[in-house]
Amino acid sequence: MKTEGLSEAELDARHADKMRKKKEARAKILATKTVEKGLLMVHTGKGKGKSTAAFGVVFRALGNGMKVGIVQFVKGRWETGERVALDKFGDQVTINTMGEGFTWETQDRQRDIAAAKAAWEKAKALIADDEHQLVVLDELNIVLRYEYLDLAEVLPVLANRPPMKHVIVTGRNARDELIEIADLVTEMEQVKHPFRSGVKAQKGIEF
Amino acid sequence: MKTEGLSEAELDARHADKMRKKKEARAKILATKTVEKGLLMVHTGKGKGKSTAAFGVVFRALGNGMKVGIVQFVKGRWETGERVALDKFGDQVTINTMGEGFTWETQDRQRDIAAAKAAWEKAKALIADDEHQLVVLDELNIVLRYEYLDLAEVLPVLANRPPMKHVIVTGRNARDELIEIADLVTEMEQVKHPFRSGVKAQKGIEF
Repeated sequence: MKTEGLSEAELDARHADKMRKKKEARAKILATKTVEKGLLMVHTGKGKGKSTAAFGVVFRALGNGMKVGIVQFVKGRWETGERVALDKFGDQVTINTMGEGFTWETQDRQRDIAAAKAAWEKAKALIADDEHQLVVLDELNIVLRYEYLDLAEVLPVLANRPPMKHVIVTGRNARDELIEIADLVTEMEQVKHPFRSGVKAQKGIEF
Repeated sequence: MKTEGLSEAELDARHADKMRKKKEARAKILATKTVEKGLLMVHTGKGKGKSTAAFGVVFRALGNGMKVGIVQFVKGRWETGERVALDKFGDQVTINTMGEGFTWETQDRQRDIAAAKAAWEKAKALIADDEHQLVVLDELNIVLRYEYLDLAEVLPVLANRPPMKHVIVTGRNARDELIEIADLVTEMEQVKHPFRSGVKAQKGIEF
């Protein structure tokens, strides 16, 4: 479709027509979407934003009055800001930080495995209860990748969760079997990163 | 590297050694990252999580005591939860919602252009001031794509922002010239979406 040489009025008219059709098409599609269910969401990929987007959903859910459970399978140093922000919502949020740091910090495989198993017990309770509408399993993918938890134990719990329970799983290298049972999978791809030009992680923004 | 046939003790020892080396390598890399600067971040791609990850960064920044300015270039119906959550932080947050809905809702190109220009004036003020450390320009990419704002006017303002000012730009179809001047670009790729199986957007989670 050529737009060069058209007057502003012609562009406006064409725009109005195109947008009217778009709205109609959208309404038709939306009318077919009627199923309500708890979603299993996976944020994976090598880019930034996997846990950050999960925290964004958490704050949206909290703002909507929902109760949220969070299990952090790997404790990083960058949760200070989130913790302070989550504390504003009092007992609307339940947080379990079970990991003891990144695996290269602990350098202790048996301790990592024990921490992962303890975290998974907390996760199972949050998934099963009638109280929390959203459960975030932050960095579960890493724990599954290192085989600290058995995929055969984790998958049925996620697949057979209560019908309206929303679950978000984050971490790079999501297992194929998890992607298979998920409702929504987003891959965060890193296009450009400031590390490459010697810029360090910026407090308040990246941690 | 073969791990089959190794005892648990051998696996543990190998793990400890590997993680020790990883920690050393990491420390060496981190030592070279010394630059502190405000980051220009772009969240683009067709997947979900672009605005949500920006809101995640907003809450992290708020939790760290920073002041945050938000300009929404396209007003959607899904900000109720975020608004309630942001209100918890009182005057730490400045929000300007200038768009009047998606372009297929207004169907009025001239009104969209006027709204985009008004929003950009607010954005320029937030970028220039000494008060807000983080500015989110939500869906600016859409407005640039439709050419409601002139790229030649927007780019210099972003490129020449105050040195410690962090800016996040969201929206699909980020212009190449914007990616060129950005510090951090993440592309959210949609791998799987519940819409395909007739599931509607779930309140509290997706809006």
